[in-house]
Amino acid sequence: MSKQQLKLAVIGGGSSYTPELIDGLIRYYDEFPVAELYLVDIEAGEEKLRIVGELARRMIEKSGKPIRLHVTLDRREAIRDADFVSTQIRVGGLDARSRDEKIPLAHGLIGQETTGAGGFAKALRTIPVILEICREMEELAPNAFLINFTNPAGLVTEAVSKYSKIRSVGLCNLPINTKMQIAELYGVPEWELFIEMVGINHLNWTTRVAIDGRDLTSDFLSKLAGFKGVSMANIPDLEWDAEFIDSVGALPCSYHRYYYMRDEMLLEMEERLRETGKTRADDVKEVEAELFELYKKPELVSKPPQLEKRGGAYYSEAAVQLMKSIYNDVGDIQVVNVRNGGIISCLPDDVAIEVNCVIKSDGPHPIALSKQLPPHIRGLLQIVKAYEELTVEAAVHGDYKAALQALTLHPLVGDVPRAKDVLSDILEKNADYLPQFKR
Amino acid sequence: MSKQQLKLAVIGGGSSYTPELIDGLIRYYDEFPVAELYLVDIEAGEEKLRIVGELARRMIEKSGKPIRLHVTLDRREAIRDADFVSTQIRVGGLDARSRDEKIPLAHGLIGQETTGAGGFAKALRTIPVILEICREMEELAPNAFLINFTNPAGLVTEAVSKYSKIRSVGLCNLPINTKMQIAELYGVPEWELFIEMVGINHLNWTTRVAIDGRDLTSDFLSKLAGFKGVSMANIPDLEWDAEFIDSVGALPCSYHRYYYMRDEMLLEMEERLRETGKTRADDVKEVEAELFELYKKPELVSKPPQLEKRGGAYYSEAAVQLMKSIYNDVGDIQVVNVRNGGIISCLPDDVAIEVNCVIKSDGPHPIALSKQLPPHIRGLLQIVKAYEELTVEAAVHGDYKAALQALTLHPLVGDVPRAKDVLSDILEKNADYLPQFKR
Amino acid sequence: MSKQQLKLAVIGGGSSYTPELIDGLIRYYDEFPVAELYLVDIEAGEEKLRIVGELARRMIEKSGKPIRLHVTLDRREAIRDADFVSTQIRVGGLDARSRDEKIPLAHGLIGQETTGAGGFAKALRTIPVILEICREMEELAPNAFLINFTNPAGLVTEAVSKYSKIRSVGLCNLPINTKMQIAELYGVPEWELFIEMVGINHLNWTTRVAIDGRDLTSDFLSKLAGFKGVSMANIPDLEWDAEFIDSVGALPCSYHRYYYMRDEMLLEMEERLRETGKTRADDVKEVEAELFELYKKPELVSKPPQLEKRGGAYYSEAAVQLMKSIYNDVGDIQVVNVRNGGIISCLPDDVAIEVNCVIKSDGPHPIALSKQLPPHIRGLLQIVKAYEELTVEAAVHGDYKAALQALTLHPLVGDVPRAKDVLSDILEKNADYLPQFKR
Amino acid sequence: MSKQQLKLAVIGGGSSYTPELIDGLIRYYDEFPVAELYLVDIEAGEEKLRIVGELARRMIEKSGKPIRLHVTLDRREAIRDADFVSTQIRVGGLDARSRDEKIPLAHGLIGQETTGAGGFAKALRTIPVILEICREMEELAPNAFLINFTNPAGLVTEAVSKYSKIRSVGLCNLPINTKMQIAELYGVPEWELFIEMVGINHLNWTTRVAIDGRDLTSDFLSKLAGFKGVSMANIPDLEWDAEFIDSVGALPCSYHRYYYMRDEMLLEMEERLRETGKTRADDVKEVEAELFELYKKPELVSKPPQLEKRGGAYYSEAAVQLMKSIYNDVGDIQVVNVRNGGIISCLPDDVAIEVNCVIKSDGPHPIALSKQLPPHIRGLLQIVKAYEELTVEAAVHGDYKAALQALTLHPLVGDVPRAKDVLSDILEKNADYLPQFKR
Repeated sequence: MSKQQLKLAVIGGGSSYTPELIDGLIRYYDEFPVAELYLVDIEAGEEKLRIVGELARRMIEKSGKPIRLHVTLDRREAIRDADFVSTQIRVGGLDARSRDEKIPLAHGLIGQETTGAGGFAKALRTIPVILEICREMEELAPNAFLINFTNPAGLVTEAVSKYSKIRSVGLCNLPINTKMQIAELYGVPEWELFIEMVGINHLNWTTRVAIDGRDLTSDFLSKLAGFKGVSMANIPDLEWDAEFIDSVGALPCSYHRYYYMRDEMLLEMEERLRETGKTRADDVKEVEAELFELYKKPELVSKPPQLEKRGGAYYSEAAVQLMKSIYNDVGDIQVVNVRNGGIISCLPDDVAIEVNCVIKSDGPHPIALSKQLPPHIRGLLQIVKAYEELTVEAAVHGDYKAALQALTLHPLVGDVPRAKDVLSDILEKNADYLPQFKR
Repeated sequence: MSKQQLKLAVIGGGSSYTPELIDGLIRYYDEFPVAELYLVDIEAGEEKLRIVGELARRMIEKSGKPIRLHVTLDRREAIRDADFVSTQIRVGGLDARSRDEKIPLAHGLIGQETTGAGGFAKALRTIPVILEICREMEELAPNAFLINFTNPAGLVTEAVSKYSKIRSVGLCNLPINTKMQIAELYGVPEWELFIEMVGINHLNWTTRVAIDGRDLTSDFLSKLAGFKGVSMANIPDLEWDAEFIDSVGALPCSYHRYYYMRDEMLLEMEERLRETGKTRADDVKEVEAELFELYKKPELVSKPPQLEKRGGAYYSEAAVQLMKSIYNDVGDIQVVNVRNGGIISCLPDDVAIEVNCVIKSDGPHPIALSKQLPPHIRGLLQIVKAYEELTVEAAVHGDYKAALQALTLHPLVGDVPRAKDVLSDILEKNADYLPQFKR
Repeated sequence: MSKQQLKLAVIGGGSSYTPELIDGLIRYYDEFPVAELYLVDIEAGEEKLRIVGELARRMIEKSGKPIRLHVTLDRREAIRDADFVSTQIRVGGLDARSRDEKIPLAHGLIGQETTGAGGFAKALRTIPVILEICREMEELAPNAFLINFTNPAGLVTEAVSKYSKIRSVGLCNLPINTKMQIAELYGVPEWELFIEMVGINHLNWTTRVAIDGRDLTSDFLSKLAGFKGVSMANIPDLEWDAEFIDSVGALPCSYHRYYYMRDEMLLEMEERLRETGKTRADDVKEVEAELFELYKKPELVSKPPQLEKRGGAYYSEAAVQLMKSIYNDVGDIQVVNVRNGGIISCLPDDVAIEVNCVIKSDGPHPIALSKQLPPHIRGLLQIVKAYEELTVEAAVHGDYKAALQALTLHPLVGDVPRAKDVLSDILEKNADYLPQFKR
Repeated sequence: MSKQQLKLAVIGGGSSYTPELIDGLIRYYDEFPVAELYLVDIEAGEEKLRIVGELARRMIEKSGKPIRLHVTLDRREAIRDADFVSTQIRVGGLDARSRDEKIPLAHGLIGQETTGAGGFAKALRTIPVILEICREMEELAPNAFLINFTNPAGLVTEAVSKYSKIRSVGLCNLPINTKMQIAELYGVPEWELFIEMVGINHLNWTTRVAIDGRDLTSDFLSKLAGFKGVSMANIPDLEWDAEFIDSVGALPCSYHRYYYMRDEMLLEMEERLRETGKTRADDVKEVEAELFELYKKPELVSKPPQLEKRGGAYYSEAAVQLMKSIYNDVGDIQVVNVRNGGIISCLPDDVAIEVNCVIKSDGPHPIALSKQLPPHIRGLLQIVKAYEELTVEAAVHGDYKAALQALTLHPLVGDVPRAKDVLSDILEKNADYLPQFKR
């Protein structure tokens, strides 16, 4: 790695999350000394990019770190010879997200940004753009790592792994949040805690908890009666049923609520939309508007506390931890999205999974699971992964048949007539972003 | 095989289906010369057993075949030294079936005898009784084949395979009906048609159709627009959507409607119950009452045409074909339920599957699939099979946790609060038949 | 299948075995009515082709069957629109075979036509020619079956399966001979016997023997003390050690002697060569010379009894049985060489194996094994199969590295310096037949 | 882990290697503060134990570390409540080793302590004793880690993993030596180097070399022309053939010479025995006699440089590194022997393998391989592992059939008559140590 001239390109640099990332880059500068930092965005995001760029510049100046900041619309320039390319894009913006949440609800289905029919629509829009970025990386920075935050992160990782030669890692802040919360539960620092997370992005289970070599899994599960699990800003945090958790034998993740508490979640979403006319995307729009107002203020030289409302807790932590472990060949364990390669033996080898990995300078190496998955974890994992495989095919090839089968298979859709209707709606309302579907 | 004294024990001999079986035994006597035929039933079914037994006696007499008929309540006597034991029992009778259909509907779920929460309840009641029969076979007829018709046939086969040393085959009349209908579609005799069926009982796909070595699968699929598939007397035969079938790339079975047309099926069931107060079990009761009136008539010496309304077309065909192929070491191909053993590589080795098998005198040998399963078939198959694995554990060990996870996992249940409620209802209303659940 | 005009092309039609095949085609004409029979050979074999062709013509004439015989050097004409293409070629002729036997012996290694370094050399010469035939079939008879007898039949089948779209079956007379001998041992007709053969061509084990559904495996193994197993004309039939056979728990095949009795086999081969200056190839040359003298006699109108000395007992039986089962969609069980596809789970999916298959009109469908392979069978099978995979790569791509690794890995070679020497010798002495190796 | 009272029991404490271990415990005391150190041995080794014990006492005293040393023949006392139990025993002593080397040579086979027939004999003697120790650990220290150095370390680890509940790790100094040598080759400190080792104990391949994230595998392989690989004191270090290494695409380990250079290795062993009447064991005896003379000297207070001749370079390094990483939950990567669990997908799940593992406080977690094994690595690995599986069965159950199959399968034996003879010799000459074989 070119230690002298470490270059990082942030695609979607105009994101409201960027100050979070800048903060992390500054804090960890000694271990991860970015020399050239490119914030790049598309023309439609120029205004936001400019605002965020100026805040970033003020933050860096104040820090005194010798990070050279470049704010640009020229993606090729940003990528050229980069060591790391991180992506935090949102194809279609928050308007598209709002549609992803509302279209399914209009068909009586859960409407969520990354799960179910909403996540499916987002995947169709996002995967082709990410693969375009990969093509540019293959040409301009073939040895760079793609650090992908863009949701649905698991689907995107799988698409990149199947259709590009670029080394990529999919990253989510859910695992680090889970670890933080469990550490807090036990009153130990996060680094004394060992957890085994198994699954795929936004559908993983914490199957093992150990502190200092002592296996605390049973004790941990008994503590979960009424535990809300990790709160994610975007998910209503209903409590887990004690008897149910006991029978799972593992801690589900927050997104599991969409499966395990389907009825109540749907009801809550429907009521909220009916009462307020809004979904999560609409709130986020408001939060973002406020944030950008804040960002504009010249006196602001650090990430504002209001950013936390936006969600994405520990986002920069996860990102910088990963990049600095690669950069420094640290060999610590982080939960990231990688190619399966036999680690979860009940899934195909070439799919993306989210598990404990050792992070070395050549990227993440997944670690063997310490126990076999029980049927109730295995079955749900397999059907959702099969949905993801179909969705990747649909997104890459504009394959209508794969798209229809993907939605039909998804446990949150299932019914064919409904799958056809919601698919038709998705394709129509996202037509501008889905050139691959020329029917 | 003791060719001189071929002995067949029919457990649940008082079933209204029995004349169908007797008819088959007579027709195929030359190839499958049953010398000793035992019809056995429990005390509660004595009256029906007597009626059916007398009809059977008249049928045999008329045929002139030297089949010695024994009608008895002594199951051990029936099993002792048998070559084949066939089971067609219904634990709890039609009243239990009626509850299996109604309890789920009361919770807004599909209520069906073998699929979903209804089939789950039936499995809990049935598996322990079948394993009891296996224990007796291990003692009294360890080399006999258990030919199991009792639903849910796949779950029962899996339980026997995991928890008994008895050689058993699970049998269903769906595959043979499918083959008959496709043969009819092409205007060829059934034996000129080759089909590849893959899956598990009541959830299998016809992935390949060939006549005389020519692969007709594509042509066949294009013919399915509006095709109702195999009509089973117990399933509303909604038409398949042409676009959907094209995207499956295979013919789903009738029971797939519960998954693929979930909403409409549920609606139809709910409406029917609301309008008539009845489910399929109630109809069957009426049909059975009529049948037994008929059976009583001394002038009846053959199976009455009314029996067809009962469902179970080609039932005796399937049963006798299987037994005579074993008896004569025929080596023909039949679709039956057997231990997987790697044939469907995305499922565990020790589960039951329903696929093409070569029938030799030592039983069925499954044949390799001619192509890999696509993700949309794989995913659904895997989740339902995982549900079945959990259900077998619940049924055998009275394991509440496994039961809760089974229902939660099932695509037709899913939601945890609902799963808990319907499970609680099932356990309470079937308490007399579920001694293994002592909570 | 074009039942009116069944066309069979026999490539290597000038082989001394051909009368055997003609005899079979005549005997089974009613079930496998070949209308057009092409015997084709290369120019170098024209004289032999003419002699065999005339004998074939006399045999057919005498039989009165309406088989139209074509004797030609035009391979494309022979293949065009054929239903079956059978190959019985010998690239380099018996001189090459003689070298295959002598080169290894000169290096202190077993020299055998299909096993070890000799079989390796034969594979290098043969595979490219067979793939050339496949290219022609893809163009001229894409739906035909390739019935390959050419040794090493397993390696050839694997190469065709990996590098061609042609449907092919690899055939050997060892399985049918084994079955015949076991049937004789028990005094039952061959068709009453069921055996399970598992492995790869010339390295398979009979793991199960049943008559009429009764498992006789233990009894069978106890009978093998001193049993010579199947005698193949080309293999010294040393007796099996009783204690050893008992510990195998299965009947090894004749070719296993090269592994299990390596020292004695090598000694015998070395002594024979030293004493007589001859190997098996030299004997065969003499036998063939005599045979062709016989074949020339106009009064000869049937296969002469002397042909049996040549080896290849039941050769036509195996070939015609296979083709007529495909032609008539019989569905009987035959042991042939096919793509693994998971049947032997400890081997890769895409390799060729030799196991029980159901023969339908679309070809052979392998049947699940009835038990897992024990480590001592598994280990030997795996290493020899890995050798075969490397040999296929070497043969197809002229890959020296794969060739060196193949020989090094082979249990009958092993030592690297020796592997290099024998490889160098093989490449040099077969240079005319190995254009793919341009070093 | 009881951080206050860290207790280590060294079984076979009277070994000449012990000062090496003591040296490591002193050097790393701060990170691995052993409070109670037990050296235990059997009665026959009392004299050596006393000598080593006194030297250990002097070394500890000089170091000033508060390690309480216990020298005892009471194994149960040593094991009771231990945190770590390390085993470095030699059942039968060097006399047995001498026989292990000479018996095979008498049959024309390679005679080596851990490989081939010699290693087989050692396994038969050693495994039952180690399992006896495990039984005591299950009773007296069920949470302790067994750190096993006793050869054949892979076979022992597999036996413990299959037949005991004790957590155990098998350790060898070959991997650390390999890493040290490659680091030296590149002039980098060992900890900057990443290597991927894959295989089983004494049969592993270095398939990948990276420094600072740059993959140097190709460069590394090109450097190996004439490279002797890691020198082990006990293996003649013949040079690797450049062309051969290039075709392997990985660095074989030293023990591979017994396979890849079989002829020359055997010749060298035979010549040496003929000329000197000695094998390696005899040299070791002399070295040990000298060492114990040295150890007796009261002025000796550190491990003497002569110990290096004994072999076992970096032995204490490997042992203490492993134990301190477990103790401190370090999470670094070390190559150790563990249960496979799917990491090497072409081997059974329940066998022992030797691969990169992350060392956490609950032991080693194997890491996914970065690439699939090519056939030439796979094939050799599979056959030797199958030999090991059979050997474990033979050792645990005294199973003569498994023993005969094990030796027959081993690539360095192969021939059945020879396998029978050498087995007979082994069983007879080791009869005192093989109570499990009561024929």
